[in-house]
Formats: sequence, C-alpha cells, structure tokens
Amino acid sequence: MQQKIAAEFLGTFWLTFGGCGSAILVAVLPASGIGYFSVALAFGLAVLTMSYAVGGISGAHFNPAVTIGLWLERRVAGIDVLPYIIAQVAGAVVAAAVLALIASGRPGFEMGVFAANGYGPLSLDRYSLLAALVVEVVATLFYVFIYMRVTAPGAPVGFAPIAMGLTLMLIHLVATPITNTSINPARSTGPALFAGTAYLSQLWLFWLAPLLGGALGACLAGALKEK
Amino acid sequence: MQQKIAAEFLGTFWLTFGGCGSAILVAVLPASGIGYFSVALAFGLAVLTMSYAVGGISGAHFNPAVTIGLWLERRVAGIDVLPYIIAQVAGAVVAAAVLALIASGRPGFEMGVFAANGYGPLSLDRYSLLAALVVEVVATLFYVFIYMRVTAPGAPVGFAPIAMGLTLMLIHLVATPITNTSINPARSTGPALFAGTAYLSQLWLFWLAPLLGGALGACLAGALKEK
Amino acid sequence: MQQKIAAEFLGTFWLTFGGCGSAILVAVLPASGIGYFSVALAFGLAVLTMSYAVGGISGAHFNPAVTIGLWLERRVAGIDVLPYIIAQVAGAVVAAAVLALIASGRPGFEMGVFAANGYGPLSLDRYSLLAALVVEVVATLFYVFIYMRVTAPGAPVGFAPIAMGLTLMLIHLVATPITNTSINPARSTGPALFAGTAYLSQLWLFWLAPLLGGALGACLAGALKEK
Amino acid sequence: MQQKIAAEFLGTFWLTFGGCGSAILVAVLPASGIGYFSVALAFGLAVLTMSYAVGGISGAHFNPAVTIGLWLERRVAGIDVLPYIIAQVAGAVVAAAVLALIASGRPGFEMGVFAANGYGPLSLDRYSLLAALVVEVVATLFYVFIYMRVTAPGAPVGFAPIAMGLTLMLIHLVATPITNTSINPARSTGPALFAGTAYLSQLWLFWLAPLLGGALGACLAGALKEK
Repeated sequence: MQQKIAAEFLGTFWLTFGGCGSAILVAVLPASGIGYFSVALAFGLAVLTMSYAVGGISGAHFNPAVTIGLWLERRVAGIDVLPYIIAQVAGAVVAAAVLALIASGRPGFEMGVFAANGYGPLSLDRYSLLAALVVEVVATLFYVFIYMRVTAPGAPVGFAPIAMGLTLMLIHLVATPITNTSINPARSTGPALFAGTAYLSQLWLFWLAPLLGGALGACLAGALKEK
Repeated sequence: MQQKIAAEFLGTFWLTFGGCGSAILVAVLPASGIGYFSVALAFGLAVLTMSYAVGGISGAHFNPAVTIGLWLERRVAGIDVLPYIIAQVAGAVVAAAVLALIASGRPGFEMGVFAANGYGPLSLDRYSLLAALVVEVVATLFYVFIYMRVTAPGAPVGFAPIAMGLTLMLIHLVATPITNTSINPARSTGPALFAGTAYLSQLWLFWLAPLLGGALGACLAGALKEK
Repeated sequence: MQQKIAAEFLGTFWLTFGGCGSAILVAVLPASGIGYFSVALAFGLAVLTMSYAVGGISGAHFNPAVTIGLWLERRVAGIDVLPYIIAQVAGAVVAAAVLALIASGRPGFEMGVFAANGYGPLSLDRYSLLAALVVEVVATLFYVFIYMRVTAPGAPVGFAPIAMGLTLMLIHLVATPITNTSINPARSTGPALFAGTAYLSQLWLFWLAPLLGGALGACLAGALKEK
Repeated sequence: MQQKIAAEFLGTFWLTFGGCGSAILVAVLPASGIGYFSVALAFGLAVLTMSYAVGGISGAHFNPAVTIGLWLERRVAGIDVLPYIIAQVAGAVVAAAVLALIASGRPGFEMGVFAANGYGPLSLDRYSLLAALVVEVVATLFYVFIYMRVTAPGAPVGFAPIAMGLTLMLIHLVATPITNTSINPARSTGPALFAGTAYLSQLWLFWLAPLLGGALGACLAGALKEK
C-alpha cells in the first residue's frame, strides 16, 4: 500500500510539474500559439512516461476521477480510494509549490494564471459555465472509458500508457481554450492554491465535472462489457 | 452486434469531437499555423486512442470507407455494413451537435466553416474540384490499404492503432489546405449539417471520393496478398 | 518478387506523396515555421505507417541507400538490388507527378522549389556544398545503421517502423535548412524532375552522399556486431 | 566492452547531433517558437531511436547521470563507469565539432549560444542559479527514476526507448527557458567547448545538478522496490 501511495504521489507530481510547468514557464515566451500546443504535449507525455514507470505498482491513475470510476466498477477496493486521492492531491500541490519556486527565479515574475482552470471570466476565451461543464464531463467520460478498456484483461500488453497519455494530449487540444483543461481534480487543486481566490472559488466545478464524467465513463465501460 | 454498433458510434463521436473540436475551438486563437497542425494531431490521436479502446469489439472502422472496403474483401459480413455506417454517421452528427453547444458558449461565436469539408470556393486555398477529388481518392486508397495490411493475420499485435492514427495524422498534414481533409463520409456529414447549405451541396464529393478510394485500396491489398 | 517491387513502389510513393506533399501544399500557408515542422513530421509518419503496412513483404527500404547498405552486408541478394531501386525511383516520380497535378489546382500556382533538394544558392539558408555533403553523409550513416540494428534478429518485434519513422523525422528537424533533407536518392529524384534544371544539376550530390553514408552505416553496423 | 563503449559514443553523438543540431540550425529561422518546440522533439527522438538501435548492447545510457545512478544501485559494474562516461563525453564533443563544421557553411554564421546551457545572465529568460539548480535536479531525478523502472526486470519488453525518449522531450518542454535543458553533463560539455568561456565557467552546475538528481532518482527507485 505504501508503494501504491508513493507511485500515485510521484505520478501526479510529474503530471502537474510537466504539464502545468510547461504552461507556466513557456507562457512567457512570445509565440503563444506554440505554448498552447506545448502544454498539450507535456501533459500527455507526463502521463505516458510515468504510467510506464509505476503503472505496475498503482495502476497509474494520477487522477481522482479514474480512482472513483474504477471503484464504482469494483476494480479498486473501497479502502484504497481515500489514500489514493490524498496522494494525488498532495503530489499536485507539492508540484505546484516547486513550480512556484522555480518560476519566481525569473526577474519580473508575476503569479498570473499559473495554469489554473477556470470558466466565464477566467476562461481563456471567456466560455460560459455551461460550455465548461459539458466539455469537462464529456472529456472525462471518454478518458475514464478508454482507461478501463485499455487496462482490461485481454487488452494488448504494454500499450495502455501510450493510449492514456495520448488521450490526455488530445483532450488538451480541444478543451484548453474553454477551461484550460482539467478533467482531473488533483491537477486543478495544486495550481489554484497559488493562482488566488478567484480561481479557488471556481474549483468546485473541476471536482464536480470530472467526477461526474468519470463515473459515467466507468458505467459505460461496464455496460459495454456486459452487452 | 449491439456492442459493435456502440463501439462504432463512440469511436466516430470521438474522432469528430476531437478532430473537428480542435479545429473549431482553436481556430479562434491568433496563431492559425499552430491550429492547422493541432487539428492534424487531434484527428490522429482520436483514432489511435479509440482504436485501442474498442478495436477488439468492432475493428475500429469509424469510417464508412473502411467498412465498405472490408466488405468488398469479405472481411465484414454484408448484414453488418448498413448498421456500421448508420452508427458512424450518428456518432459524427451527435459529436457535431455537442461541439455546437460548447462553441456557442463563447461570447461573439459565429458558426463559420465549423470544420466542414469543401472544394473550389469552399477550399481553404481555393483548390479545384479535380484537385480535391484526386487528393481524397489517393489518401483514402492508402488509408484503407494500410488498415487492411496492419489488421491482417500475422501483423504484429497491438500496433495497428498506432499505424492508423498516424496515417490519418499524415493525411491531414497533406490534404487540409485542399479539402480540409475528409477521407471519411461520416466525419464530413456531421459538421456539414451545421455549417450550412453551401457545404451540404458539396457533401456528395466527400461520400463519393472516400468510398471510391477505399474500394481501390481494399482491392490493392487483396491483390498484393494473392500475388 | 512482384510483391516486393509493388511494396517498394507503394512505400516510396507514400513517402514522397506525404513528405513532399506537406512541403508543397503547406508552404503556401502564411506561418512558414509550422510548415517546416509539419514536413518533418509528414516524412516520418509516411515511413512509419507504410513500414507497418508492407515491412513484412519487402523489408520497407523505400530508399536506395538502405538497399545498397543491406546488400553490402549480404542481407539483400544482388539480383534484387536493381529492381528495388527502380521501384523506389518510380514510386517517387509518380508521386511527384500526382502532387504536381493536385498543386496545379490552386489558382496562381507556381512550381517553385517543389520540395527539391539543393545546396549553395539552392539551399534554404544558402549552406555550402561541404556542409550539405557532411550533413547528408552523417545523417544517412545513422539512418542505415539504425535500420540494420532494429531489423536485426533479436530486436524486439514490431518496433522497427517506429524507430525508422522517427529517425527520419529527427533528421528532417536538423538537415532541412541545409539541403531540404534528402538522405534518399529516390525521394530527391522525383521532385527534381519537376523543379527544373537548376535542381537537376545538383541531383548528383543526393545520390552520392546518401549512398556513401549508407554504405558507411552498414559497415559500422556490421563491425559492431562482430566485435 | 568495446561494443558498449562504441554504443555509448554513437548514442551520445546522435543525442547531441540531433538535439543541439536542431537548436543550432533552426535557431536562425524566423519563427523562434517552433524552434523551441523542434528542439524538444529532436532530443527526445534522438534518445528514442538510438535506444532501439543499441539499447541491447550498452543499455543506452547516453548520459553520465544515468551511469552513476545505475552504479549506485549496482546495476553497472564499477569498472565500467569511467569508460562509459568518457565515451559519452567524447561522443558529445565530436558531435559538437561536426555541428560547428556544418553550421559554419552558412554565409554570415556566428557561433552564438551554440545550444550551450546556462543560468542567470546566460539563461534564455534570465532565471536565477537557484531556479536552474532546482529544475535540473528535479528533472534528472525523474529521468533516472523512470529509466530504472522501465528497464527493470518485469517491465514490458520493447517500450523503454519510447518512455525514455518522451521523458527527455517532456523535460525540454519545461526546462528550456530556464537552462536550455541539460540533465546530462556530456550533452552540456560538447557545446560549451565551442560557445566560449562564459558558458564554460557555468559548466560545473550541469555536472553537479544532473549527477545529484540522478543519484536521488536511483535511490528513490531502489526504495520503491524494497518497500
């Protein structure tokens, strides 16, 4: 169990350090278009690489929505759910703190968005709460659905990390203008603690929508199996 | 059979939601060059990820041109052809509707191209009907040829989703300036319903050319096997 | 043998159609930076995807430098060398012709560079003949060396197409400003026929350097094995 | 042993030639945003491709931090450590020399940064020494941790090169604005010899931080195994 918690902590640290780190450190470069693309790639590669590293230990959830979804389908024991989620949130918070330390080493640094998620006035393109809710629910639904399918017995061995990393990359290519892309309450919590109260006041959506979408995705995967 | 239809619906939903979604939501960002590249990546990753998720159920066609090609080479039963195609078109239409809902959550949203395919005056660079026809036929020919080869008995296990996703990505890197890249009648139909009558009046080409190219690709794969 | 020739023809067609096609059709888009990157990706994905499709038939050379290198190390029969090379050149020439047909469907089209290779005044950044020679020899040396290693007995099954496609992608990220990246005499010959006499007069370098580099790479792979 | 040394020399040559080469040759193109991204991709692809080519011979370290980390966990014999590191540094230095030869073939060439690493006034965005130290230690920690996990007995066969190449790519997407990304003393030493005394006077950090981070990563991997 200690191993699993360490694996989830390290994996969610890496996801936040890599993905949010690319957003925070590259956002100051002039060509913002490439920054947007770089962040999508960074999130995807972080999940891909740490899934290869620790997938055999903890299953490489790195995301409370995945843990809850697997628990609903009885692929994670109830006693593991809370420790997993605490480890994930802790990993994201520590990663955000390390990023704040690094980022503050640049002359003239200001905290700014700090890769936090938002909707309405805090959306990159000012998308509404409804648009944010829909895109986060749909994207998490597919993320958890694909997770359950590619880690199911009988799936080809060794390819799940590729599928999961690239699914997260794809979701960032779609959802970033709307919410800055969460689908992961832990990833949302870390940066929000540093980005300030406006972002913290919207954090509820980035727990609610991913957990709802993840539950639906898990049920869909379960239903498809039983048909 | 219900499982197969659900898999094709979900896969084509994801292809349209991811690929066209990236086109619709990122097109409003300033750096259009990166948008063009992002869309190619998104389409490829959508096919790659859902092929891992549901390839074992339905074969992961997500495209009427693939279904028809496989049927010509007797790798899909005649009774499955119509249900597959209906599920694919339905997935694309529902995805386009969800994208319209999300996109309309941005202040000042206008429908515009909405990732629809076109030629002549509706081509991104005003390419002629002949150029559009040739590029769609040739690209679909290779797409279906590669599909048949990498899913044939004896091909290395687990790599077909990578090959197919990256083939679609490559085709987008070539054909987007000409037709906005179809090679898939279902993917073309969903957005055209929302982009308006001008695009609908050109939709025939994006059924004709992919189905013709796909049939040629399937025959080529068959001929290569028998030599 | 007919199968092998067909496979090499199709593979080199696809390499030229995809890689040079992305160069020719995207070069007219405003953001030239992304065009440069897109071309590297397209060449790599073309080799990756067709290697999965026909690698089991012909070995997926798609390049006279690979064929000659393998023949030097006795992994290709002498009687196969000329038919392979003819099929490769024919595939590249036909692909260039199809690209010329498509590209001429744009109002105001001019032939221009047409993805041809060059040095000195025909280099993108006016690099010298010596720089062009060195980069082409070194890059082809590693390309053929990596080919021989990842297709050798004992290499993990199914990964060679990934390694070869991504090697070509990497080489494009380095060599494009210098020679527009050849390392492949067939790929150089197709576009040069359409780009005009200035490019044809430099074509000798893009036969000489890749064949020399490929021979060195094959010998290096042979020497490493025997040590 | 000669084979191993040759493999490490070739691999670190390729890493430096590909990654630094893309930085040096593309940096002169106008769109610097794409250059930054291209370099990240090039470094990652160089490690990925040569790990497939020679991983079976030497383990594909290409980096003194990996060699030291493996030695601490007794996965490399003490007698191999120095030869490995010498081969790696030699490969990087020769690659930098070849790049200098190629780059000087451009009219108006000036040596400039030449892909060297730096902090403070030599950082791309003028990040402090502390920020540089933290990002290099944390990134190398994870790089070596992931290396040890994906090459451990029981890890799925054939995927380690993908995981390692993409880990390096991700690290470049985060650390480049800060230090131009080292995590590898050999890669830092080659270009610094050509970029001049200012860069050489900072080279100590790019030996200290990666070796420290690598040692921590190796210990972490060891601890996780034993829990």
